[in-house]
Amino acid sequence: MHSFELLSEKFNLQFDRSHFPKEPASLYEPNEYFLQLGGKRIRPVLCVMGNELFGEIIPDAWDVATAIELFHNFTLIHDDMMDKAPLRRGMQTLHSRYGDSTALLAGDVMLVTAYEYINKIDNSLLTRILKIFNEAARQVCEGQQMDMDFEKKEQVMLEEYLQMISLKTSVLLAASLKMGSILGGGGERNQNLLYEFGKKLGIAFQVQDDYLDAFGDPLKFGKQVGGDILSNKKTFLLLHAREAASPVQQKELSLAMSDEGDKKISRVLTIYRDCKVDEWAIELKNKFMDEAFQHLDDIAVLSKRKQPLADLAHFLVKREH
Amino acid sequence: MHSFELLSEKFNLQFDRSHFPKEPASLYEPNEYFLQLGGKRIRPVLCVMGNELFGEIIPDAWDVATAIELFHNFTLIHDDMMDKAPLRRGMQTLHSRYGDSTALLAGDVMLVTAYEYINKIDNSLLTRILKIFNEAARQVCEGQQMDMDFEKKEQVMLEEYLQMISLKTSVLLAASLKMGSILGGGGERNQNLLYEFGKKLGIAFQVQDDYLDAFGDPLKFGKQVGGDILSNKKTFLLLHAREAASPVQQKELSLAMSDEGDKKISRVLTIYRDCKVDEWAIELKNKFMDEAFQHLDDIAVLSKRKQPLADLAHFLVKREH
Repeated sequence: MHSFELLSEKFNLQFDRSHFPKEPASLYEPNEYFLQLGGKRIRPVLCVMGNELFGEIIPDAWDVATAIELFHNFTLIHDDMMDKAPLRRGMQTLHSRYGDSTALLAGDVMLVTAYEYINKIDNSLLTRILKIFNEAARQVCEGQQMDMDFEKKEQVMLEEYLQMISLKTSVLLAASLKMGSILGGGGERNQNLLYEFGKKLGIAFQVQDDYLDAFGDPLKFGKQVGGDILSNKKTFLLLHAREAASPVQQKELSLAMSDEGDKKISRVLTIYRDCKVDEWAIELKNKFMDEAFQHLDDIAVLSKRKQPLADLAHFLVKREH
Repeated sequence: MHSFELLSEKFNLQFDRSHFPKEPASLYEPNEYFLQLGGKRIRPVLCVMGNELFGEIIPDAWDVATAIELFHNFTLIHDDMMDKAPLRRGMQTLHSRYGDSTALLAGDVMLVTAYEYINKIDNSLLTRILKIFNEAARQVCEGQQMDMDFEKKEQVMLEEYLQMISLKTSVLLAASLKMGSILGGGGERNQNLLYEFGKKLGIAFQVQDDYLDAFGDPLKFGKQVGGDILSNKKTFLLLHAREAASPVQQKELSLAMSDEGDKKISRVLTIYRDCKVDEWAIELKNKFMDEAFQHLDDIAVLSKRKQPLADLAHFLVKREH
């Protein structure tokens, strides 16, 4: 059994090379640029870990992992366009460096390249892997569309938001693990348990992300605390606050949201605290983490085989209280 | 053996239904809208014809054909965005009706849906079909990028233009036929001959298209004659004129190109005729048609099996002189 860190190093060794032809350079040079921006590469390593949970890592796992990381980058390129984001990881986004048309095509060809890696695997596994890959790809698109729809919508229910996060974020983590489990020879029940583990973990991670943006330690948190509040982003916290607030608090929340700068942040945070949104978020995160671990526990393999996944989950989402 | 018309009707019966889930409607309704704009659907029918050239049509052929048509529509949605085209087939393009972000995602999910249809076919065929599909998809992206690059380039060589057209247009026709030939059980040599037939036919078709835009009968030609000249489009005709013109004619061509309206068209056409661009284009088209038919002739099946493909080729590209 290998730790996330070790498998991550191994994956990076394989991944950090060219995945594209040389010509036309105007198409492929942007792709190379975007990939070298790096990333945590959690999804591809989850695939390899899903494999190793059930058996020795097979060579095909690296190809599927590569396909997953290319797919993830395809979504980032196109999402950045939709968000009109100038920066990613402190560097220019693909569209802001090379223009929208090239970003559109570079994303498209990144996705096609992902499918080329999927097609390298053994024929006996191909139909099953491609099915999960396609499903996840479709759901990520659906999640992104829902996210855009929510931007324009006045009222979003917590349930809808949960579904959107699940599609946009969790499903790919879950599918990465499940594809790995198929490669490792896991049975169908175990595959599905691992999928649910990934899905719940993904939601817990997002709840934590929303929480830290509002209540995180400014010294430890990489980004500006309160950034989501400033940009009126619909988060778990905001949606719950709207549902939990009294009529008076709701009015104050609306007023606070139309304020600006630090004053806006502190006013909104006060309402969050008054409505106990912070405690609620930690409970919600813990609930999803518990559910995730319940699924991991239920997988019928020796618990020591599960240790690397449990460690990674605890590293990604810290249990509190 | 069935004619193009008959197979086309059969394909339309299968294709003209929903290919998408209902929700989120904001994503899938635009896809349904775009597909109902219709089209000639030559590519999917070529796939079925490629199958029938070698054996009875297998059920998988309809799934691959559907994937091809969805892929083609994906390219149209994204190309329209890049071209900022307001209309397609006289109706609003997807992005002008629903906005750029939705068009981006609708295209993405159309491509994923194409891969879902590919994954319906028998596992024993999947690796081979997916390989050709991926290759064609990549090449179409490359061709589109080259096309955009050429827009900004002062000087484009005829050779480069030929390569661009081949990637952007011909390769998908060729791949459609080749995938069909695999489904029909054609041998490797025959598959490749059929591929080359499609490739040459595609180029001949494009030469004819460029020719008709300049020299077509206004009564028979659907679009405005001279449209390519007005929009400064780099065509086979313009690139050849630049290469064939004397220094004096080159100067006159540059001046004519900066003129406007009907005067611009008639001035450019005069130079085209002086340089015998019209005769040259017909010869070029005939050359590619001859090469296409040479490849078709070389395919080792009874010639009556080839008749529907020969008929279609003659229908698409009229032999002149």
